[in-house]
Amino acid sequence: MKKKILISNDDGIYAPGILALYDALKDVGAVTVVAPAGEQSAVGHAITLSDPIKTKQIQHNGSFFGYAVGGTPADCVKLAVCALLPEKPDLIVSGINLGPNTGISVIYSGTVSAATEGTVLGIPSIAISLGSYQKPHWEVAARVARQIVRQVLRAGLPPDTLLNVNVPNLPAKKIKGYRVTRMGRSRFVEKFDRRTDPQGNVYYWMDGELELLGDEGETDIIAVREGYVSLTPIWFDLTHRDALPVFRAWNLAW
Amino acid sequence: MKKKILISNDDGIYAPGILALYDALKDVGAVTVVAPAGEQSAVGHAITLSDPIKTKQIQHNGSFFGYAVGGTPADCVKLAVCALLPEKPDLIVSGINLGPNTGISVIYSGTVSAATEGTVLGIPSIAISLGSYQKPHWEVAARVARQIVRQVLRAGLPPDTLLNVNVPNLPAKKIKGYRVTRMGRSRFVEKFDRRTDPQGNVYYWMDGELELLGDEGETDIIAVREGYVSLTPIWFDLTHRDALPVFRAWNLAW
Repeated sequence: MKKKILISNDDGIYAPGILALYDALKDVGAVTVVAPAGEQSAVGHAITLSDPIKTKQIQHNGSFFGYAVGGTPADCVKLAVCALLPEKPDLIVSGINLGPNTGISVIYSGTVSAATEGTVLGIPSIAISLGSYQKPHWEVAARVARQIVRQVLRAGLPPDTLLNVNVPNLPAKKIKGYRVTRMGRSRFVEKFDRRTDPQGNVYYWMDGELELLGDEGETDIIAVREGYVSLTPIWFDLTHRDALPVFRAWNLAW
Repeated sequence: MKKKILISNDDGIYAPGILALYDALKDVGAVTVVAPAGEQSAVGHAITLSDPIKTKQIQHNGSFFGYAVGGTPADCVKLAVCALLPEKPDLIVSGINLGPNTGISVIYSGTVSAATEGTVLGIPSIAISLGSYQKPHWEVAARVARQIVRQVLRAGLPPDTLLNVNVPNLPAKKIKGYRVTRMGRSRFVEKFDRRTDPQGNVYYWMDGELELLGDEGETDIIAVREGYVSLTPIWFDLTHRDALPVFRAWNLAW
């Protein structure tokens, strides 16, 4: 029997990356798409509690493609698993994101949050991103997606662990292979552009530049820069275990 | 010289919890408030990239209180540190949140995300939440806030680490003390209520119940249930280090 694969993303159900992912996986399993109706980049792990979440069935090439959801990537996965799908999926794949999800950017990533949500729900989950915003080599990311999905369907994933995949935006023959990595420390350093509207109210535009801050060794950012597909195990337990003794030593009295 | 303290939250600048926090800390340091103009609960670590971010100066009791920001908690901290404040703060405190931020809920928490953002920017940061939505004992959470802030100003925090504080909603004399904890695994298990609008379009309301799933030992949820103030060291490196060898053993060829 075909494995049930749920696809989501944060660029929205009409983004080229999700169609590339659908085409790459439609022969690997029984694929359903549940994705945001519009772009939901940099929404982090947001969920929609105080508003209703609209859904709409979407066709593609004349047959059922999936659901457009008026919510965040995490909403999409929760709603798909708990309400829309007749059965729990065997695998969740989020992407293909246009642009990398490496370094500190991972904590703002809607693409990764969809996979995190799948992991919280106990379903093996993968996030996949392409490392550039220009001239995307979707065919390379699609080939990576097929290979990784087959591997995960065969070998599984460790408990509580999602796989964050970042593909260099290069032609296939220039990809050097796979590298298992840590999340890097590089991040966008923000600048805010201050403006005044015609009524005199102040507003800002957020802008920024990626700065390489303290990245060394086998991090996701360095792997992608060196032409490797980066595979990072990610989880949702935010406890900094190494810091526990520091706080125990405080010995605070109430 | 007085230490510079930045206060933010996710319940919004007019929420009672942020006023309780302001009153608790106004003698401990030089406090500025930069907080969302409206409620921003469960926004996770979202940031606002494709819309302008409005700001407005707010007065309280006739003197300058801070800025209301038309954005998320992470936006507030970025904007405060990079644009609004004349100098980098010595400490960031997010809260006091109405309701706990324990277990898996931490990954959806706007309160914690403000403190995470401060940590990314290299500033010691604390998130503080009160463990109930009803009849809040703000005076108890305020006392905890004063004690923890004084301790952090004295002793500092380990690098890359924020402190996630959860206070049981009890009278002061029933609090048993402090306990250093791990983030628990308990989470809300969602139910979706399906409805149809007058035009026949389908929408859902997300609802859920907290279920104790796999929590054992010294977790945040158990500490609060047992009457202890929970102190959890949290960081932003999502790498699951224990899983690295599993993926290295895959030995994938391109």
